[in-house]
Order: sequence, then structure tokens, then C-alpha cells
Amino acid sequence: MARKESDSALRPSRRGILFGGAAAGLGAVATLGVESLAGRGTTAQASEELHGQEVIPFYGQHQAGIATAPQAHAVYLALTLRNGVDREGLMRLLRLLTDDAARLTQGEAALADTEPELATVPARLTVTFGFGPKLVEMAGSSAADIQPLPKFSIDRLQERWNDGDLLLHLGSDDPFTLAHTQRMLLKDARSFCEVKWVQTGFRRSRGSEASGTTMRNLFGQVDGTVNPAPATDDFTSLVWNEDGSTTMVIRRIHMDVDTWDEVDRSGREFSVGRTLSNGAPTTGTNEHDEPDFGAMTALGFPVIADQAHIRRARSENTSERIFRRGYNYDEQPSGTQMSDSGLIFVSYQKNVERQYIPLQKRLAELDALNQWTTPIGSAVFLIPPGCAEGGFIGEALFTH
Amino acid sequence: MARKESDSALRPSRRGILFGGAAAGLGAVATLGVESLAGRGTTAQASEELHGQEVIPFYGQHQAGIATAPQAHAVYLALTLRNGVDREGLMRLLRLLTDDAARLTQGEAALADTEPELATVPARLTVTFGFGPKLVEMAGSSAADIQPLPKFSIDRLQERWNDGDLLLHLGSDDPFTLAHTQRMLLKDARSFCEVKWVQTGFRRSRGSEASGTTMRNLFGQVDGTVNPAPATDDFTSLVWNEDGSTTMVIRRIHMDVDTWDEVDRSGREFSVGRTLSNGAPTTGTNEHDEPDFGAMTALGFPVIADQAHIRRARSENTSERIFRRGYNYDEQPSGTQMSDSGLIFVSYQKNVERQYIPLQKRLAELDALNQWTTPIGSAVFLIPPGCAEGGFIGEALFTH
Repeated sequence: MARKESDSALRPSRRGILFGGAAAGLGAVATLGVESLAGRGTTAQASEELHGQEVIPFYGQHQAGIATAPQAHAVYLALTLRNGVDREGLMRLLRLLTDDAARLTQGEAALADTEPELATVPARLTVTFGFGPKLVEMAGSSAADIQPLPKFSIDRLQERWNDGDLLLHLGSDDPFTLAHTQRMLLKDARSFCEVKWVQTGFRRSRGSEASGTTMRNLFGQVDGTVNPAPATDDFTSLVWNEDGSTTMVIRRIHMDVDTWDEVDRSGREFSVGRTLSNGAPTTGTNEHDEPDFGAMTALGFPVIADQAHIRRARSENTSERIFRRGYNYDEQPSGTQMSDSGLIFVSYQKNVERQYIPLQKRLAELDALNQWTTPIGSAVFLIPPGCAEGGFIGEALFTH
Repeated sequence: MARKESDSALRPSRRGILFGGAAAGLGAVATLGVESLAGRGTTAQASEELHGQEVIPFYGQHQAGIATAPQAHAVYLALTLRNGVDREGLMRLLRLLTDDAARLTQGEAALADTEPELATVPARLTVTFGFGPKLVEMAGSSAADIQPLPKFSIDRLQERWNDGDLLLHLGSDDPFTLAHTQRMLLKDARSFCEVKWVQTGFRRSRGSEASGTTMRNLFGQVDGTVNPAPATDDFTSLVWNEDGSTTMVIRRIHMDVDTWDEVDRSGREFSVGRTLSNGAPTTGTNEHDEPDFGAMTALGFPVIADQAHIRRARSENTSERIFRRGYNYDEQPSGTQMSDSGLIFVSYQKNVERQYIPLQKRLAELDALNQWTTPIGSAVFLIPPGCAEGGFIGEALFTH
């Protein structure tokens, strides 16, 4: 992660910045963050620690937004290619969106940006591209590895949350930046694509908890304790293919918080195998303690039940693991509904069939949590490698 | 604004906290923010400046959430009282919700909270109550001051965004906190109310820009430069009634960003009378410069046109002013739509008829911005005074 480079501050007219006098109520300052970081125009509040100018590099071996520490906000946009868009058109689209993403993530306006002032606060913006089977085939590659998942017994999939040709995954610590980025990309995509679905997710805001705190989901559970850590060999061996690509599974999982609320705390902890207070296994004290799956109660029952989520999620085969990077969703309730919430489950793995499917099969067969959770959407995407400046995301797939 | 008091840390069992060893990938810390602020259990990242434990006092002469510096996220929930809920029932509801709000805003679980761990990061949470005409009348007061607005020629109101009996306005710098608070309040309200509408809004995230930076809207405009500053005499004289109450107008204003995008920069600046770069009047240099409404171009036309928004928004009568505290909205587009965005316009004023309506009439008659904006929802609420510990919001209205 790099602070924004100061060369951008050499073009104040571009951003149309500056000001002088300032200050209205509340100790207002009239300068934008970009200016104060460049060391001029600062007024009060010099001690404020601002994060809006933090940028994540766009170019590289891998696409950003996967090993990137999760931002507070995410939007997943699945687009359907319009009839008549051919291979050449697809390449034009990808060049265009790559250029937009490369600029916007660095806090610069896109070329056709009609609201350039809204592009100046990247707040760790990332744009990650995913290819559905149709796009991979159009490019001329084999889509064998990214077919839709087999139907699991627990699935109640709704077509409106399934599949898609092109996935755009946007992440930022600032929701306003996401809104602008989303619109800018959709504007440039509109003659090529229609929107299939949009999923908006959130975690805790930047700086409201210590960084690295494991997320809780809307059931109140600490969710994501066991997860390979980016930049480790373990992560690399599970996630990145040799060519820098990976695959992504995204599943919309409705959580029935109403019936969950009827379960007492011990019942909840029993169903997961972890405490609600800090996410420790019910055989341990601290979040990251190893669960003791052999531990028995005084009555001779396993402390971590056979159907407990953490037992079912674990395989003897250590290569059957995935990297999770999901978000909560919470849509507007209506009428007598009190909430419409759940989890945007997102996992990355080299190979869906070998890593994700065995795990998900096991959970579909038996997992106490299934009583309160229902998968309602499912999609699989190839995440192409990153690209170098001048290239575009996905270019390596266009092999002929 | 106060840091959370340490007494909450004296009841670790209540929150079911814990920790001990910590640290997995990414320098994770297993402690919750509340603990590290209480000075124990801290591990790495001690230098991180966290804001999740900042609390806004709940009790007081005025309700919080109005003079409070706007949080990054807001939710406005309008509820309809169920048939059969009588005056006694209404008082029970208000006592219940007041108690919930008093606790949740201080980072404590509500009494019936089934996910108490989700209540520990208030991040300046406020809960503000508003009463529609029906509630005011049920309490036994006159609702003469809070009738629905007259229909303006520009309105295209949709019943699903209009009116409501009880308004709950939640604000926090953390979206996760808002989700939990919303659900908790709706759970306690469910036997009394149904949801009429929910409007979710956002500004830039906490700390992505210097605090006090004037918000931009999704047209890219600096929006809110002229606004009385809380805690000034001007603010008090415009907003607070003697008894600590005020009134709130909330209007959902759809912004047609597509047609706006067809207008060039000078046309945009002309329509508002302010520059896009920094919000300065087109007769000035800095955001807070006074507009020179008499300035003429070389050709003899006014620099700030007759139909420019800032000219039309200003009255000769300085008491015809309001305090604005709005949010952006951006809903999920579908099909060929590229965005569904706008402004949740929110204003507070002592008196709607004397302060808001003359202003809005003037804008409805002529305002260049009307070409791209459409009011689609409208509601007016009485905001009762704050209450003291042991009381409940709105109690002063129950006069008999």
C-alpha cells in the first residue's frame, strides 16, 4: 500500500482544487485531503489521520482486491454481455475498463469522467475483474474450471442472483468513492453489457476497530478466524495459479436472523463450535486456539458436536482449503419484515473442484448452521492475472 | 463528544469479552476496541487511531443527531402504527425505544439484545425520533405545524416514500453498527408498528477527508456550503424551539445523473452559480466567499444567472433559512440503468411554514437545477425535545 504520489499534486487545475480562507462552523477546513498530503493549503486539524489518499497499486502479477486487506465496503457487479458483442468488442471493453480502473484506483479521474472531483479520494479503492464461462470461451480459452457449481441440497437459488458474464468487484473504505466508481465503470460498459445483479456489502468501517480484527457476521459470530494469511506460502499455494490467476466463488447466503434469535447462547455456540464472545473454539480460550475435536464432555459427548460448523468445515486433506473474503449484506426491510440480511460469501482458490466443492458438499450434507442459512445465489468466475501498464486485464486469455 | 466511559469495561462478563493470546495473519489482534481503550489486553497496532468507541451523549435538552457533526452513514426509518395501538401502547413503545437508544448509543447492548457483541462499537451512533401528525395528535398535542407539505409543481411524489407515523433516524460512522441498531429497534417496535419506508444514505467515510469538508453530492457539486453552524446563536434561532423541539423535512430527491452528464462544466456551474472545482461562487475564488449577485459579465448579463440555484435559494428575509443535514443515496441499478441515485434532503427548522415553505416555493418556481432533479418522496416530522435519564422521548407531548 502506498501513499499517493505527489506528482498528482502538481496538477491542481486538473482536480480544480485550492482555496484559501476557510472555516465555517465545527472548525471546518476547506482544503481537500490531497492538498494537505502534498503539504500545502493545510489549515486546522493537521493532526487528523486521514486515509482517503491511500492507494493500492493496480498493475502487477495478481489483480488487487484479493490479497488486499478487506476494505470496509464492497460492490459486486455481474454484467451480461449484450447480443452482438464479439471478441473484438470484448477486448475493447476490457481495455476501456482496465484503463478506468487503473486511473480511478490511483485517485485519478477516468478519461471520460464527467465528475472528476469525485475521483480524488480512492481510500484503497480496488477494481477486480472476473470472467464467467462465456467470456473465457469467447477469449478462446477453456472454461472447464469455472462451470456453475453442482446443485447442493441446501440451495434455494434465485436466478436473479446467479452467474453473469463479467464480474466487477469494487472495494473501498469510502462508500462515496464506490458509488462514483460503479457509475463510471457502468457508463463505459453500457454499450457492451447490461447489469445482471449487484450485491453491496459492508464490514466495520475503517478505524472503528483495530485493523486485523476478525469480522463478525450479522448472527454475531466471529466469522473468518481460520483463513490463510495473504503473502504467506500457504496462501500462495492455495490461491494463486502459476500464471497469477485464481478462481472466485460468490454465493449469496440469506441468514434467517429471526429464527436464529430464538436460539439461546449455548445453542448458538454449540451449532458453530465457537463462543460468541470472542470466537474461541468451545474447547479453548482464545480466538486462534486450535479446536480440540477429540475433547469430550463429562457425559461422554464431544464438546464440539459432529454437526458443529467448524468440525464440518475442516477437511483432513489440507489442500481442500479456500481463502474467504466475504461481506455482510443488509437490505431494506419492508412491511412486517425486520431485516433482510445475510452474507456475501466470497472465496478464492486455485481450483474450485478440488478445493471448494468437497468442502461445500460436506457442509451441505451436515452443518448445524444450515438451519438458519439459505444459499440464494451462486456464481463462479475466473479471476485473470493482473496486467502490466499498457496491457489489459484478461489479455493472456486471448490466446490466438 | 466523549470517549466511552471506562465503567463499561468493569463489566466484561456482560459483553462476554475475553481474549488473551492473539495474533494470526496480518498482525491480527484478538481484543475488541472497548478493551484496548480500557487499557488492557492491547497488543500490536497501539498507534492506530480508533474511533469506534466515540459516543454522543443521548440525554439532554435536544435530541442528538441534529447538531451532531454528520456521521458517515444514516438510515431513516418511517414506521406506521398498527391499528389498535392506543395512547398507552404508544407510550410503552416510546419508553422501550428510548431505553434501547440510550443504551445502544453508549455502546451497550439493548435489554433484549440477542447479539450483544454487535453493540460494542457505537462509532458516534445517534438515534433521533420524529413524530408524524398522527402520533402528535394521539399524544394530545396539536399537529398544526407538521402537516404534509403543499404540493409543489416539481413534485412527482410516490406514496411509498411519503409520510409515516414514527421516524427513527439512525446515524453512525460504522455501517455495521447501523445494521444492528436498526434491527434491534425494529424488533422492539414490531408489535406496535410496520415499516413504511427505509432510506439509507451515506457521505464520505470517517477520516477519508478532513473533518468539516463540505459534502459533495453525486452530481459532483459541493453541497451545503451555506448552512448555519451548530452551537451558534444563528443556529439556535433558526432550529431550536424554546422547549428543545424542532421540525424536520425529509424529501427524497432523485437526481438524473444521466442527463446531468450531458451538460458541460460551464453549463453545470452556470446552473448552480458555483464552481465544480471547489464550490466557490462563480463570482469568487473560495468556497465560503460571499456570492456577488450584482456582478455582470462584459456583455451585461448577471454572472450568477436569475435561475441559478444559489440565487433562488437565498431570501432577502434572513429568517427564511433552514439547517440542512442531508445524505446521498445510491440504490442498485438493474438492466440498462447505470445508477439510481439522489439526495436524501433533510432540513431542520423551528417552523416549516415560515422557514422551509417560502424557500421551497421559490425553488419550485424557478431553479435551473430542477431540470435534473425530481422530488419523489416527502415527509414532515416533529422532533420532540431530548429527555433526561428515566424519561422518554416525546413525553412532554403527552400533556394530559
